[in-house]
Amino acid sequence: MEGELVVSAPGGEYAVIVGRGTYAEALPGILSRLDPGGLAVVSHPSILELHGNRLREALEPKGAPWGEPLWFAFPEGEENKNLRTLEEGYRFLLREGFTREGVILAFGGGVVGDLAGFLAATYMRGVRYLQLPTTLMAMVDSSIGGKVGVDLPEGKNAVGTFWQPEAVLADLELLDTLPRRELLGGLAEVAKYGFLYDADILEEMEGWPGGVPPSGYDLGGLVFRCAAHKARVVERDERDLFGERALLNYGHTFGHALESSTGYRLLRHGEAVALGMLMAARLSELAGLAEADLWGKHRKVLFPLLGYVRPPEDIDTGKILSAMEADKKRGRALRFVLLARWQNPRLVESPPGVLVERAVGEVLAEWRRWGEA
Amino acid sequence: MEGELVVSAPGGEYAVIVGRGTYAEALPGILSRLDPGGLAVVSHPSILELHGNRLREALEPKGAPWGEPLWFAFPEGEENKNLRTLEEGYRFLLREGFTREGVILAFGGGVVGDLAGFLAATYMRGVRYLQLPTTLMAMVDSSIGGKVGVDLPEGKNAVGTFWQPEAVLADLELLDTLPRRELLGGLAEVAKYGFLYDADILEEMEGWPGGVPPSGYDLGGLVFRCAAHKARVVERDERDLFGERALLNYGHTFGHALESSTGYRLLRHGEAVALGMLMAARLSELAGLAEADLWGKHRKVLFPLLGYVRPPEDIDTGKILSAMEADKKRGRALRFVLLARWQNPRLVESPPGVLVERAVGEVLAEWRRWGEA
Repeated sequence: MEGELVVSAPGGEYAVIVGRGTYAEALPGILSRLDPGGLAVVSHPSILELHGNRLREALEPKGAPWGEPLWFAFPEGEENKNLRTLEEGYRFLLREGFTREGVILAFGGGVVGDLAGFLAATYMRGVRYLQLPTTLMAMVDSSIGGKVGVDLPEGKNAVGTFWQPEAVLADLELLDTLPRRELLGGLAEVAKYGFLYDADILEEMEGWPGGVPPSGYDLGGLVFRCAAHKARVVERDERDLFGERALLNYGHTFGHALESSTGYRLLRHGEAVALGMLMAARLSELAGLAEADLWGKHRKVLFPLLGYVRPPEDIDTGKILSAMEADKKRGRALRFVLLARWQNPRLVESPPGVLVERAVGEVLAEWRRWGEA
Repeated sequence: MEGELVVSAPGGEYAVIVGRGTYAEALPGILSRLDPGGLAVVSHPSILELHGNRLREALEPKGAPWGEPLWFAFPEGEENKNLRTLEEGYRFLLREGFTREGVILAFGGGVVGDLAGFLAATYMRGVRYLQLPTTLMAMVDSSIGGKVGVDLPEGKNAVGTFWQPEAVLADLELLDTLPRRELLGGLAEVAKYGFLYDADILEEMEGWPGGVPPSGYDLGGLVFRCAAHKARVVERDERDLFGERALLNYGHTFGHALESSTGYRLLRHGEAVALGMLMAARLSELAGLAEADLWGKHRKVLFPLLGYVRPPEDIDTGKILSAMEADKKRGRALRFVLLARWQNPRLVESPPGVLVERAVGEVLAEWRRWGEA
């Protein structure tokens, strides 16, 4: 399916356009409306190799008044979403004479979107930008809502702001070249919307052989549904102040500790979130909050998404708890999103430590069993 | 005089409190209202040496619930308003566990205010901050209005955003230790409000012997009047979109070229702006826009403020014009604020180059004559 939905946040109203093979046609019209004084594409070399020519053609229709686009590509990986890359971006744009009237195009996954969005938010006190996500994760989550920023060694997304894009173009065709492991990571975020808001998503995912949508499946419809959930949350709580947007961190408190205690190398973000949601579900049960077999249903949907990663020998409950403690000391609030029932999440400030420990231990043990099976 | 005015910008409503010897008494009340989860002072070592103890006492009343403040001091000078210092600030705050609930206090001149404000705007996607300006320039101009940011080698304030403070505390007593050259620089910005909006300011300044207010002069009243002008402009055009706030750049297009063509070492910002306003006034006359002797009146008010700098041998019209060209190439709009009459400014996009050249040359020659006198 194709579709368009509008996000009406205080920081800006914009369209999320979902389609297949459509972005190249949609772009010139959007750009004409924005009337940019220049264009700058922010991306990775690997993405430009696959899709750069088509984007170039879309950006350079005959007689386009905005001129030749600038191209700023930086290496893939969360470790490059940092102040160094940002500084290179600023200085490149300045040297090339990119003005306040220009428009930046973020062409990539979450790393590109976060960095390009922050570049746009802070270059000459703010220029406009477009999100052209190339991963499922970015399409259903990070490209919508204007959370932009970079990492520091002391904290992920420690530097950032809120800056809404002018439009989000989610073109499913770009996912055809997405590595399967990236697809699975995106599906973890899709499952998150299921657990938080949408039983239908879970029902579909439970039926998928091997955890992935069967061929011919309407992935566009799924992306649209997830984007609509995200848009609704952003509209109600753009700046993450009222506890609504915080619910989207389901699985993330555990997930972040898993990422940092494994040095950000072992697990992709989606995999860490999948394991984190398993832990949150188990904790919800242990805390007497949840209805029966919350964890069982999580297992069925989430373990198939972990096919590319084996449980490491040297990870244990203690390490993960220490990583959570370290996060807390660095000022990161240790709030947990737990589920009282399906689609009934709530924020919990300080669950009993002994239950947190048990939830982590049980999920790690189950992950090992699953890995051996 | 003492007084308080409220700035009602879309990005936030806040008080500008002008007084003498008052900030230490006002701070605990303001902090109680903000109920911060922590405090971090951003300043220079030289300022903390003079005023740090008093600030510490004001921040640590008995039983204050916000705990011991953190102190982040960086060396003076525009050359330290950069991404390096910013990174040090971020990492310091993270290591110390400073949270999103904390409040940053900018305690210094424009450099401190700009950097601390940007730190506040982007640390963990934004924390609150207070402006405690210690220079006349910061009290009448940079501390009000939320323009925050840092410089890059390729451009001053090239990185930044808009982020309004929770309050501005302008305490005249802090100016008692201000070097006289800094005072003169601040008076150039005061004169700017005179030329743009307020004939009374000019009338007073014309009567000052040696260009400085006589002892016993009500500097508080003057600061309040300038702050009120600034507040009004910020309220109408917070994000510099409608041409209203751009008028505050009177003298700055020339001034910026003067700063960059002399390597940012020769001239203080206020001195460059003073010379820039002289050039803008002369250009207004040459363009047939202004009433007679605009320049003459500028000379009378502004040349006395240049007492600490001699015209350098190696500066000429060509260098200044080249610097403006370079600014233009880097995407900085070369708009001039000209005066049609007193208190009647307007934006002019492209005045004839030959007139710009003449205005620059004549002011440089007049500056040399003045310097020799």
